[in-house]
Amino acid sequence: MPYVNIKITREGATTEQKQELISGVTGLLQEVLGKNPKTTFVVIDEVDTDNWGIGGESVTELRKQT
Amino acid sequence: MPYVNIKITREGATTEQKQELISGVTGLLQEVLGKNPKTTFVVIDEVDTDNWGIGGESVTELRKQT
Amino acid sequence: MPYVNIKITREGATTEQKQELISGVTGLLQEVLGKNPKTTFVVIDEVDTDNWGIGGESVTELRKQT
Amino acid sequence: MPYVNIKITREGATTEQKQELISGVTGLLQEVLGKNPKTTFVVIDEVDTDNWGIGGESVTELRKQT
Amino acid sequence: MPYVNIKITREGATTEQKQELISGVTGLLQEVLGKNPKTTFVVIDEVDTDNWGIGGESVTELRKQT
Amino acid sequence: MPYVNIKITREGATTEQKQELISGVTGLLQEVLGKNPKTTFVVIDEVDTDNWGIGGESVTELRKQT
Repeated sequence: MPYVNIKITREGATTEQKQELISGVTGLLQEVLGKNPKTTFVVIDEVDTDNWGIGGESVTELRKQT
Repeated sequence: MPYVNIKITREGATTEQKQELISGVTGLLQEVLGKNPKTTFVVIDEVDTDNWGIGGESVTELRKQT
Repeated sequence: MPYVNIKITREGATTEQKQELISGVTGLLQEVLGKNPKTTFVVIDEVDTDNWGIGGESVTELRKQT
Repeated sequence: MPYVNIKITREGATTEQKQELISGVTGLLQEVLGKNPKTTFVVIDEVDTDNWGIGGESVTELRKQT
Repeated sequence: MPYVNIKITREGATTEQKQELISGVTGLLQEVLGKNPKTTFVVIDEVDTDNWGIGGESVTELRKQT
Repeated sequence: MPYVNIKITREGATTEQKQELISGVTGLLQEVLGKNPKTTFVVIDEVDTDNWGIGGESVTELRKQT
């Protein structure tokens, strides 16, 4: 009965990509630990780039510098 | 000083229902563990059905199959 | 398919009390939002009083002042 | 490689204020624990006042009473 | 710069299995979304079976019934 | 009424250092956003180095390579 929370920046992940994350993580937990997919939850949070910081700066700022 | 995080799919919970969850959980922690309601926090996250997976599929897909 | 995370300080909650929290929260989500108990997860985190702060002080310190 | 999650009510925090939180927390972890800013993540969640409860009431209700 | 939190019950996952989860999830995020592994964090929480509930009962109780 | 969760690897942070994190973050939220310290919660999670991955490897492995 695992619970997985994936946080990514909100930068256009498609419904298909999110579905791939859900099935991929669920499959991984089954393979590695034998966990039942029926009771595996995956929750994806998409976070605004203003609200995610790394190295003391927001991702919004980091994207400008690249 | 408990902190409770409730994650549900975003499928139309009303303000009244959310208020019931907040007061219900706060009351439960007071009854069971004697926790002071004044310092009990409840945070409700409503998650898009595309972003919640169970059994390797998104809730959006599961709702279509029902 | 709700997911609920309850964080409390580690101060001797018994197995029975934790069971009461699990069944109480699960029942509340069924009553208020009609959520299926079979796919309701509750995870309780017990946090050391040194690791929980309120008002800028650890709960360990606050307990000494009372 | 710390990970910090800051949850606040959604009540108009500006991009500049969020940047200050990101740089402030990252600096604090470097000062206190010598953590490398490059691998310090900060994620800010802004929560609707209907979805945050304290003392058994939503912040929306509490704001009306003040 | 994704952040992934995996919660499982504490039932003997080995260091090797946890390493497989870390590398598997990191690889998945690279494949599906092109995320840089260097800034992908994975945190695994192992939760006591007394502290995890499903269907209104603790996993400790559920394990006894099987 | 902010809630802050700080996750660090379990590598010997002292009670004093944890107190500094608690007071530092609480003060930051007061300065930047005018948040009341009395209702600011800080929870520190110390995570085993086997359970924290970055770049696809556990911190335990990364520490060996340094």
